[in-house]
Amino acid sequence: MKTQLEKNEGASAEKELFVKMVIDAWETQNSRVDKLLEDVSIEQLQAETAPGKNSGIYLLGHLTAVSDGLLPILGFGERLQPELENIFLKNPDKSELEKPSIDELKRYWNEINAALRNHFDKTSADEWLAKHTAVSDEDFAKEPHRNKLNVLISRTNHQSYHLGQLAFLTGK
Amino acid sequence: MKTQLEKNEGASAEKELFVKMVIDAWETQNSRVDKLLEDVSIEQLQAETAPGKNSGIYLLGHLTAVSDGLLPILGFGERLQPELENIFLKNPDKSELEKPSIDELKRYWNEINAALRNHFDKTSADEWLAKHTAVSDEDFAKEPHRNKLNVLISRTNHQSYHLGQLAFLTGK
Repeated sequence: MKTQLEKNEGASAEKELFVKMVIDAWETQNSRVDKLLEDVSIEQLQAETAPGKNSGIYLLGHLTAVSDGLLPILGFGERLQPELENIFLKNPDKSELEKPSIDELKRYWNEINAALRNHFDKTSADEWLAKHTAVSDEDFAKEPHRNKLNVLISRTNHQSYHLGQLAFLTGK
Repeated sequence: MKTQLEKNEGASAEKELFVKMVIDAWETQNSRVDKLLEDVSIEQLQAETAPGKNSGIYLLGHLTAVSDGLLPILGFGERLQPELENIFLKNPDKSELEKPSIDELKRYWNEINAALRNHFDKTSADEWLAKHTAVSDEDFAKEPHRNKLNVLISRTNHQSYHLGQLAFLTGK
């Protein structure tokens, strides 16, 4: 028979385990993007992922901009590269807007992921279950699943979606 | 100040919330595949998602076979369509193996998802945190994240990955 203290510790360990599972899934997708970026040439990244579809560089910028947007939505601070939002989120690949170079984008990608990782390390399981910044107190009271951890689950799937498309660049 | 009973109830509610978030993410991806299947023609599904890449029908069969494989790995029972494993998991698109028709595949897809949903409804949060059937007791003691819920997180990302590729069939 477990004591009450053991029960409390068990509940807390379980909560941390849930958070670890979600962050691990996020990191796994990030590592896969990193690996792909090592494997593809500049020319491959500049090409369309399929005829008439988004280019590799656009998808890299798009994923970087979405990851950058995690900083404000999770309450960690401002975006590091706010100019990416207009180029890669509000406008399509074939816009007139000038894109950063692939080297710049890769640097942003790494810096933003490092910043996120740094914040994740300092975020407790209870903080992950708190509301994200784009939901009102009132809505959150009715819909407690609209928390920070759920944002990360959703963004992880978004990343997988585009990773599947980026994989077409590798010729595999 | 919360009583111990309230604390216990809170911990249990949080656990159920975590499980709900993961299942919701899975169902969201399933709904997106369902929507795509409504939107594409038979001809589009038979085509390659990009030149030289997997066809729509192969990816549909692949996702269906992976979902079917959730039944044994989560301890819910045997696969409903075990023949899909050889055609869509162990062999590539351009194998000599005869594939089921698109109508059959769509039916399997729906039946397997309905079976999974039925099992999910009967699975408690604690059962989700139990080990899946492909990990040993010994390994699980050291790596408690290798539980059933983690399998579902991983399969949800796998589905998103191929959904990104299937989206190329729609011409959007």
